Amino acid sequence: MADRFVRRIPEPTVVRLPVYQRALLALSAGGVQTVSSAELAEAAGVNAAKVRKDLSHLGTYGTPGTGYDVNFLLGQVRRELGLDREWQVVIVGMGNLGHALARSQRFSTQNFRAVALFDIDPDKIGEEVAGLPIRHISELQAVVGGISRSIGVIASPASVAQDVCNRLVEAGVAAILNFAPAILTVSRPLQLRQVDFSVELQVLAFYVAHPEVTVEPEDASLSGL
Amino acid sequence: MADRFVRRIPEPTVVRLPVYQRALLALSAGGVQTVSSAELAEAAGVNAAKVRKDLSHLGTYGTPGTGYDVNFLLGQVRRELGLDREWQVVIVGMGNLGHALARSQRFSTQNFRAVALFDIDPDKIGEEVAGLPIRHISELQAVVGGISRSIGVIASPASVAQDVCNRLVEAGVAAILNFAPAILTVSRPLQLRQVDFSVELQVLAFYVAHPEVTVEPEDASLSGL
Repeated sequence: MADRFVRRIPEPTVVRLPVYQRALLALSAGGVQTVSSAELAEAAGVNAAKVRKDLSHLGTYGTPGTGYDVNFLLGQVRRELGLDREWQVVIVGMGNLGHALARSQRFSTQNFRAVALFDIDPDKIGEEVAGLPIRHISELQAVVGGISRSIGVIASPASVAQDVCNRLVEAGVAAILNFAPAILTVSRPLQLRQVDFSVELQVLAFYVAHPEVTVEPEDASLSGL
Repeated sequence: MADRFVRRIPEPTVVRLPVYQRALLALSAGGVQTVSSAELAEAAGVNAAKVRKDLSHLGTYGTPGTGYDVNFLLGQVRRELGLDREWQVVIVGMGNLGHALARSQRFSTQNFRAVALFDIDPDKIGEEVAGLPIRHISELQAVVGGISRSIGVIASPASVAQDVCNRLVEAGVAAILNFAPAILTVSRPLQLRQVDFSVELQVLAFYVAHPEVTVEPEDASLSGL
């Protein structure tokens, strides 16, 4: 498939693929076999033209008058997202957020599996969360070294986030998701994304404070994620 | 200021404003008085041309050869974001995530203040988290009714998220930030944003699975947030 089109998929499209996947999972679970772009748009909360354009980036155009085959499209989106194989997630920093993430059922439903939890606080080491023992950060290298498709999640305080990031990079993770409010640098090319709750609140505040600013509905509801 | 330019600020720019704000706060705290677009770009992790373009949407162009006045620009960005006044945050759903959010120090530093916590579980009602008692959801209307600039945060399970959303809308919140993995509908125009950890993981997985896909570094690191 990769050679059928130039693979320059816009970031906003990539960010919407998980949303389509969620909508398609719901349709599939409900026994729906085909879906029009309008129906998929409704289920995903974006407009139909954007759905068609987004899916065309995947080389998928649907059948005029019939729409898309739900299960075929679902498989295609999941394969595009790399979710046809399992990703192993290691979480560093087992405060409230680390606990919330470790216990989240969403990871597992998407072929992401939390496989190891780390902290530096001696009082926490050995505690079990969601069936996994909290290990000392010094074990990171040994644990991650044995994993081929690993994602490191930083749930530490901002003050130690760069140090945690360095350790994850050295341990060889394939990508990092950072929840700490710190701008991190990495010493080798690596996918690094940041989640910051207060940024979402600030963007909300912007739009409430500026009702005169035009914004497409799908941008407002989906870009944050 | 609002009448000095057409206020069509692109969503990606809005999402970067909080990042500039964070960088400017750090510069200001460090005693830096002026900053070039290149320096601000470095601190914020985006490229300089994008910084200049983003700030031009605010009607700010800096002084050639000198750059931007840090504190003036900081004030301007904060005013744009509506952070010159306090936002009161109510959190519904006091599981692990609700606890993590209530205890987060990031809220308070950005003029967001958690003012009330709600759950439906009798065992949780009355428990104190970060100095606030957990109240029964039936008190939502009475509490939110007395707040003028309120943001409702949904940290409940997906199965009850729409019900929680309806209650927040009826109670009169100005905006909603939804952490539950559910697509919500609202019965009146309202800013609604969704945060989904697994979406961030899926986007990471996409880029790791597709190293051939071109993506601008600043898109990869900032759009998720």
